[in-house]
Amino acid sequence: MSDEHHEHRAGGPSSPGQRHDAASAHHDAKVPVELPRSVEVYDTTLRDGSQQEGMSLTVDDKLKVAEQLDHLGVAYIEGGWPGANPKDDEFFQRARDELKLARSTLVAFGATRRAGLTADADAGLGALLAAETDVVCLVAKASALQVRVALRTTPEEAVAMVSDSVAFLRAEGRRVMLDAEHFFDGYRADPEFALAVLAAAEAAGAEALVLCDTNGGTLPDAVEETVSTVRARVGTGLGVHFHNDSGCAVANSLIAVRCGATQVQGCVNGYGERAGNADLSATIANLSLKMGVETIPRERLELVTPVARHVAEVVNVALDPQRAYVGTAAFAHKAGLHTSAIARLPEAYEHIRPELVGNGNRVVVSELSGRSTISLKATELGIDLDSAAAGEVVETLKRLEHEGYHFEVADGSLELLMRAAAGSDGRLDRFFTIESYRVTTDWRADPPGRAERAVPAAELVHPWSAPGALVTEATVKVRVGDERVVATAEGNGPVHALDQALRQAIGPFFPELEHMRLTDYRVRVLDTAKGTGAVTRVLLDVTDAEGSWSTIGVSENVIESSWEALVDGIVYGLLRAAAVGTTSISERS
Amino acid sequence: MSDEHHEHRAGGPSSPGQRHDAASAHHDAKVPVELPRSVEVYDTTLRDGSQQEGMSLTVDDKLKVAEQLDHLGVAYIEGGWPGANPKDDEFFQRARDELKLARSTLVAFGATRRAGLTADADAGLGALLAAETDVVCLVAKASALQVRVALRTTPEEAVAMVSDSVAFLRAEGRRVMLDAEHFFDGYRADPEFALAVLAAAEAAGAEALVLCDTNGGTLPDAVEETVSTVRARVGTGLGVHFHNDSGCAVANSLIAVRCGATQVQGCVNGYGERAGNADLSATIANLSLKMGVETIPRERLELVTPVARHVAEVVNVALDPQRAYVGTAAFAHKAGLHTSAIARLPEAYEHIRPELVGNGNRVVVSELSGRSTISLKATELGIDLDSAAAGEVVETLKRLEHEGYHFEVADGSLELLMRAAAGSDGRLDRFFTIESYRVTTDWRADPPGRAERAVPAAELVHPWSAPGALVTEATVKVRVGDERVVATAEGNGPVHALDQALRQAIGPFFPELEHMRLTDYRVRVLDTAKGTGAVTRVLLDVTDAEGSWSTIGVSENVIESSWEALVDGIVYGLLRAAAVGTTSISERS
Repeated sequence: MSDEHHEHRAGGPSSPGQRHDAASAHHDAKVPVELPRSVEVYDTTLRDGSQQEGMSLTVDDKLKVAEQLDHLGVAYIEGGWPGANPKDDEFFQRARDELKLARSTLVAFGATRRAGLTADADAGLGALLAAETDVVCLVAKASALQVRVALRTTPEEAVAMVSDSVAFLRAEGRRVMLDAEHFFDGYRADPEFALAVLAAAEAAGAEALVLCDTNGGTLPDAVEETVSTVRARVGTGLGVHFHNDSGCAVANSLIAVRCGATQVQGCVNGYGERAGNADLSATIANLSLKMGVETIPRERLELVTPVARHVAEVVNVALDPQRAYVGTAAFAHKAGLHTSAIARLPEAYEHIRPELVGNGNRVVVSELSGRSTISLKATELGIDLDSAAAGEVVETLKRLEHEGYHFEVADGSLELLMRAAAGSDGRLDRFFTIESYRVTTDWRADPPGRAERAVPAAELVHPWSAPGALVTEATVKVRVGDERVVATAEGNGPVHALDQALRQAIGPFFPELEHMRLTDYRVRVLDTAKGTGAVTRVLLDVTDAEGSWSTIGVSENVIESSWEALVDGIVYGLLRAAAVGTTSISERS
Repeated sequence: MSDEHHEHRAGGPSSPGQRHDAASAHHDAKVPVELPRSVEVYDTTLRDGSQQEGMSLTVDDKLKVAEQLDHLGVAYIEGGWPGANPKDDEFFQRARDELKLARSTLVAFGATRRAGLTADADAGLGALLAAETDVVCLVAKASALQVRVALRTTPEEAVAMVSDSVAFLRAEGRRVMLDAEHFFDGYRADPEFALAVLAAAEAAGAEALVLCDTNGGTLPDAVEETVSTVRARVGTGLGVHFHNDSGCAVANSLIAVRCGATQVQGCVNGYGERAGNADLSATIANLSLKMGVETIPRERLELVTPVARHVAEVVNVALDPQRAYVGTAAFAHKAGLHTSAIARLPEAYEHIRPELVGNGNRVVVSELSGRSTISLKATELGIDLDSAAAGEVVETLKRLEHEGYHFEVADGSLELLMRAAAGSDGRLDRFFTIESYRVTTDWRADPPGRAERAVPAAELVHPWSAPGALVTEATVKVRVGDERVVATAEGNGPVHALDQALRQAIGPFFPELEHMRLTDYRVRVLDTAKGTGAVTRVLLDVTDAEGSWSTIGVSENVIESSWEALVDGIVYGLLRAAAVGTTSISERS
């Protein structure tokens, strides 16, 4: 069985990751001459992507993202719009000194000269030159309606703006690409004008013309028709830039490549305004693994998931677990039927080997799990769980999940629970027992009469503008073996204070605590109908030098749920440290 | 300007929501005979969708979701798999008594008879009958490889299992559909067997054959080829069921309809295992508004967004703000360039009028906003903000957002801030001032010697299994006018205790507080590298009889950030109550 699996997974040389090897043949038969051997991947996370609601990148963030994209190996990284805001100017300046790109080329984005100006008098084009990138991407409106209403100029002047600006930048030694904004709408309404814009850019020396679906409304068949027609008309590189407003951005990108596009623009994790840009991870994986079109270097495909997740951390937007290829759930199997089938024939529910894009599959344990899933999980973790104990775990999970626990996302707590059921090595009292804890937060306003801070009118409304003193302090009383320890510590907040006090109390007995730190803390209210009187679920991530684990606590009281997750996190870490050199726990990461 | 906008938005009778009216002509020219006039929408949220990691629906939840789907007007609601788990049996039983469907037909899902049994001896088919639905959807493997490896039977028996089961259910008076599992992979590898499965179902009386892309790996051109071929071979209704593992599920559904599919299966909000099922909201909107294919009743299209959001609340999974058509960000405009263009020519950055699907557009205010965006927002809120005050707001926003505030998602706090800058009506001290607050949480274990609760071994590890007493108590000292008030209250947790104490202190002065309640409380840690020592951002939703508002607090200390959001929420509510009968605030919802 296992041989068959691996044989199947190995695939043919022309489709290394693909589980339907016959597909390439079909594809090739259909449009053999048009499918390019490779396409350029152009990432616009740092410009278009950062328009996403809720995203706000510092220059440091932008440099970190650029490093990741270079690591992944995209051809182009659009860094921003010099001249549009000081942050982007600073980015390009610092990029010159600090950013050592090994694989990618940095691109500065900007507009064509304004109507009625000469190119050399245009401040925007000047700012683009000042960014000192080899490649510049100019945006121009390819819609006659947009030109008239938004630019308030004539089609002739709009075309001249493109010619002049491209020629000006070429004369200054820049490579130039053209983002033809509103192209699909513009082409539909006035194909002659849209094509005139492309022709002007090509004649002036642009190396790539990029068809942008700016409002994201174009459906696949219009893409097929438009890109095929344009491909026949232009001799340069041809790019596409899709937004996901119709939910078709990835598919549209693939269809465009099939019709002759040689560059795909998009963003890691589909970042962007409104419904986002085309998700580059899925676009790359589909093209490279399923269509046989080269994108990033083949050996870097396994970085697709790690880079997507790293970028999500940097931009501080939680990655959608469902995101195709890279999400944490993208290869997670929950249905009992599926988990047993996966064991026999992985391609039944996995369209590619997850490792090809650096992701992994896993069995999800939930209240729906029966004994067989629990036993499978126990085997995965190296826990010796007999049938009766597995049954007990199933019952306990059911009851606790009913109360609001959610072990799918708390691997540490789940493993503790399973180890406790298997024997006693996961028992809390192996390490310490808790007698009591208390945490107090106290704020008092500075006494009246004391000079008030000068605060802007806009802030007077808010409580934070009031000057005062805040103190949080926690006391824990624990027993370690025969010893009773009382410790008090201050903290930045109640959980921090409890963590500090607990560490102070048990730290002398468990020096390995020094290597553990809390890395994330999330709170969810479970019954939103009750507001702060509802049940709170706390998830805590703890990391040591070797890896990380998640634990969970549930209570009406957020302090209690935090405490539960905290104690679980520390006990799991202590167990893990005790197991170094043995199996499973030490191998988790 | 505004006339032009509305004229444009009105659209033609054949494409009421579409901003590119020429598109339908293109489409029709291409494949005129194959585009059906209407398709059946088949929702599988309650079966396939609920396999999503993190989703766990009670029978009550399922009934509520079914009501919403009926309200939306989908043709079929797949309710679950009778016989597979007790919850689904209970659902169908209660559905008979409690669910009054006005537009939708409930479907029971199940497998064909097992190999080697007769249909009337098969317990699964018996359970399907016991569910007493008019329509049954049977799943059968359309892949010869799957039949061999997973079912361990012959292709001939697999085909007979389909024939027998369909015929059995038809004889019992049921309408039958067939979900042909693994169809696209199966067809590619062994078209003869895949088509034999469909033919057997058709011959036995199935009314619809549904081609399932079970592992979600199929790309658009394979869909086009496969569906076109199958369409020419079968005389029944033809459905498709796509998963989003390649990021193409919506596009694949549209392409299938273009090739003759008459039923689309999927889930509200794209729920489902791994990367999810085809998102029905986007599928419906694209078909109805852009392709001219009837889906749900036309007059119910404006329920697409409200239903998507309502279902998200019921299933308790946060809706992705970026989700096409229905996300909160789907029509949100942030870039300065875009917000000014939207005012002139909405279709520049909006592919449809958001109202057509019950969504709305809005201007996002963030640190990137200039004075013009702030002034636009002030006008939207009916606040008279002069240029100097707008400048002050811009500066304050920049500074506070740098600290971690995020006013995009806290309309209440933003409005307070803008009102304070405009004058003094938003000032906190209009209502009360705060002298101090303190909150203590105290837990102590039951004294040793007291009888321990009997807890299962699996729980011994966890701190929650320890018996003990927990008390949380808050004290606030405030001044209202000339009066000083001290109040102490207990609560389920620290925020609840603070809320109770504050209400106790100021409630006698502001009876309108009775109508306000906290409905949601979210905590986010902003710098995950620091764990619990990092900055916490609290978002609080408060509701009164007329609507709801969100406020924000940021601090290293989660108690302080909660307190900030709480006080903002109450002050905003008091302002709102004071403004009843006047503009803006009372109209917010």
